[in-house]
Amino acid sequence: MNKIAVYPGTFDPVTYGHLDVVERIASLYDKVYVSVAHSKQKKPLFSVSERVEMLKCSVKKFKNVEIEDFNGLVVDYAARKSARVVVRGLRMISDFEYEFQMALTNRKLNPDIETVFMMPNESYSYISSRLIKEAAYMGADLSAFVPENVQKKLKEKCSDE
Amino acid sequence: MNKIAVYPGTFDPVTYGHLDVVERIASLYDKVYVSVAHSKQKKPLFSVSERVEMLKCSVKKFKNVEIEDFNGLVVDYAARKSARVVVRGLRMISDFEYEFQMALTNRKLNPDIETVFMMPNESYSYISSRLIKEAAYMGADLSAFVPENVQKKLKEKCSDE
Amino acid sequence: MNKIAVYPGTFDPVTYGHLDVVERIASLYDKVYVSVAHSKQKKPLFSVSERVEMLKCSVKKFKNVEIEDFNGLVVDYAARKSARVVVRGLRMISDFEYEFQMALTNRKLNPDIETVFMMPNESYSYISSRLIKEAAYMGADLSAFVPENVQKKLKEKCSDE
Amino acid sequence: MNKIAVYPGTFDPVTYGHLDVVERIASLYDKVYVSVAHSKQKKPLFSVSERVEMLKCSVKKFKNVEIEDFNGLVVDYAARKSARVVVRGLRMISDFEYEFQMALTNRKLNPDIETVFMMPNESYSYISSRLIKEAAYMGADLSAFVPENVQKKLKEKCSDE
Amino acid sequence: MNKIAVYPGTFDPVTYGHLDVVERIASLYDKVYVSVAHSKQKKPLFSVSERVEMLKCSVKKFKNVEIEDFNGLVVDYAARKSARVVVRGLRMISDFEYEFQMALTNRKLNPDIETVFMMPNESYSYISSRLIKEAAYMGADLSAFVPENVQKKLKEKCSDE
Amino acid sequence: MNKIAVYPGTFDPVTYGHLDVVERIASLYDKVYVSVAHSKQKKPLFSVSERVEMLKCSVKKFKNVEIEDFNGLVVDYAARKSARVVVRGLRMISDFEYEFQMALTNRKLNPDIETVFMMPNESYSYISSRLIKEAAYMGADLSAFVPENVQKKLKEKCSDE
Repeated sequence: MNKIAVYPGTFDPVTYGHLDVVERIASLYDKVYVSVAHSKQKKPLFSVSERVEMLKCSVKKFKNVEIEDFNGLVVDYAARKSARVVVRGLRMISDFEYEFQMALTNRKLNPDIETVFMMPNESYSYISSRLIKEAAYMGADLSAFVPENVQKKLKEKCSDE
Repeated sequence: MNKIAVYPGTFDPVTYGHLDVVERIASLYDKVYVSVAHSKQKKPLFSVSERVEMLKCSVKKFKNVEIEDFNGLVVDYAARKSARVVVRGLRMISDFEYEFQMALTNRKLNPDIETVFMMPNESYSYISSRLIKEAAYMGADLSAFVPENVQKKLKEKCSDE
Repeated sequence: MNKIAVYPGTFDPVTYGHLDVVERIASLYDKVYVSVAHSKQKKPLFSVSERVEMLKCSVKKFKNVEIEDFNGLVVDYAARKSARVVVRGLRMISDFEYEFQMALTNRKLNPDIETVFMMPNESYSYISSRLIKEAAYMGADLSAFVPENVQKKLKEKCSDE
Repeated sequence: MNKIAVYPGTFDPVTYGHLDVVERIASLYDKVYVSVAHSKQKKPLFSVSERVEMLKCSVKKFKNVEIEDFNGLVVDYAARKSARVVVRGLRMISDFEYEFQMALTNRKLNPDIETVFMMPNESYSYISSRLIKEAAYMGADLSAFVPENVQKKLKEKCSDE
Repeated sequence: MNKIAVYPGTFDPVTYGHLDVVERIASLYDKVYVSVAHSKQKKPLFSVSERVEMLKCSVKKFKNVEIEDFNGLVVDYAARKSARVVVRGLRMISDFEYEFQMALTNRKLNPDIETVFMMPNESYSYISSRLIKEAAYMGADLSAFVPENVQKKLKEKCSDE
Repeated sequence: MNKIAVYPGTFDPVTYGHLDVVERIASLYDKVYVSVAHSKQKKPLFSVSERVEMLKCSVKKFKNVEIEDFNGLVVDYAARKSARVVVRGLRMISDFEYEFQMALTNRKLNPDIETVFMMPNESYSYISSRLIKEAAYMGADLSAFVPENVQKKLKEKCSDE
């Protein structure tokens, strides 16, 4: 039985919450693609290649995890990678409605791809890329929320603008 | 007793979920106005006249349903149509908070107009105009979500841009 | 077109929240049945006939409202009364999940009966028969929550036990 | 990598919603234990052996699915079966709070066992064992909610009492 | 200005989540009453005096915290203690609806008493006295959820029965 | 013990809901700062000085309330004012998820500042600055939602554009 999983997201930027989920998926599947959606319409702060780079730097220790970017429907991407499973993190604080709509819409678009939800550690359940970016602009110390390389990139980006 | 209902929305574009609600309202009221709000601030993908046209094409079979557009407060519009009732679809997955705020704000603006909520078939409970537009840009097959004429219009619009 | 509505519930006891909904339904339908479910499994504080009596006393002024009790499926009862519509109050604070499950289960049991939701005045959105009974046992003044005849009955019942 | 999953529940009785989830799990894991919790404190309508029997009858076609009962902590049971994963169905309409509390409590009790959530088909998202039992007592036709053998057992049980 | 707060609950038994809230209140108010409601209708596992005792043992270090039991309306009790504020813990995972109903019902019963909500540390956001009791009966190690003296009492109580 | 509270927000514009919360805080703390966040990224309709002015005009009667504007992290601002407490209004209809994320993120940024939640009167639980602005553009009578001076400013602003 095929044991490949895709963990898609915008990762703008990756947080300790995302990385906790990556670690859990890596321990359950033979191969994991952490897949950075272009998400142009969301106007990300970081470019696709910057987001991929930050992730690569953070997941080096997981031998079965690969970072890629993708454009288009996630179910088409998953099918190209021969994955049966798309994983989404489900935080106690999260947008269930959007997650459920997306999961059911994706299932209708391709019934062979299953969305499964996993919970990050409760310590990360409130970390949000959006709030982190807002706090970065205000000069906050973000060491509790993101890895060191991401902190550095956030500092650069926020002084740029 | 007056049996006129208004079913307002942006309908950008109309989906099978909306049409399921229209059918239910049409079976309960003598006259139904499906009323397309201009909603300029939401920057709709389709123009008002395009949205009206797609709806007209989809509801031909209901003899007591009329499609109109309107601008301004929905309670003022409903009063002009002599309607006592504004109907909103309430999906298992939907933005209750916004619906409740709107319903109570509208009641304060005109206590004679009552908002009533109806549920679409559970098969349509997750269909969202927003996700459909995102999927259209990615070339998805949308036959499970919108009528054929809307599919065609979405394809045109997305290749336009 | 048939304009009969059923408003079912346990009404143990009726509150100002219920009565606000009754008034709204009475203004929109030709005939309204306020229908007291036996609900033995909920072990109500008041007997069916007590609950019917308290309601009758409270709705005298509405000429098109009738109080009845019923046992069995609400969709069967509604069909017997030739009603097309079952109304449920939807408070900002309420058990959506249970309401949705019931509405969709009822629709499957009889697709000809439609459940519609109406909102009570926001002043009554937090009133709960359960909390009222708890407060009654503690001797609270309940004049803000229930009509005078219900207050009296609650006082009797709570000193009984 | 070990590919065994446990799908625990009370299954009082099994519904088409549960069976839809079983089918999804069976297609993703090498071995699936559908595990009937004794749940004495919930006072189930059916005995453990009746619940196991109804499930066995319904999942015959899945070669990698086994039905068992268990008592005690689900994480201890999963460890005994060498499973790394406990699956829970997450319906649009469901008790998230309870599910999240249980998942996080279980993780603290045994961090090696991961809870993953999967969604049943939206057509089954509102089916509840509790409402089915209530409807059975009222003589409802339950063919839309449970398999034929369960319908028969429900009819027997409800005329017993 | 009077700086007295009441923190009421059933505390059956006290958990690290409750104690985290106590510590926060103790740092913000001059005097804090942690007040054990009799809650007979909830059929608590521990007697009022056992629940008071476990709390006393756990809050010794807070000089401005006193443990009491009370019966009747919490607003009457707070008024007797000359408190203006009732504090409730609001967990990410908690029964908002019940909390809101109670807070608004209490405000109507006595508008001089204000309910304020505080959040425990996210690490405790999922701890529930109910699940802890269930796990205790199954012999789970509860050191992550409750203080040592409570663990001991739970073990005694569960082998009693 | 220090009894200073900060009540931060965008107040674009202040509503009767906000003012109800201000009154409650003013009765519980020695000193209250109602603090207008610049919130440039939200593109407010009114300038910071307009928002401050409207608030000043509305809270004159509270002797212990001061209006200020601030930029940057709310926890840094609160620390500068020697406040231990940040108050947020928690409406039955409100964005819990965002509130919880912000509260927990702020606690991590400065554990000495505590966020406490208070509920406005239920009559104001649905009032939203956003809906008020939308209704103002449509010429609605807003006397039920905002004070007279705010109504006048809204009228001016909407005819400007």
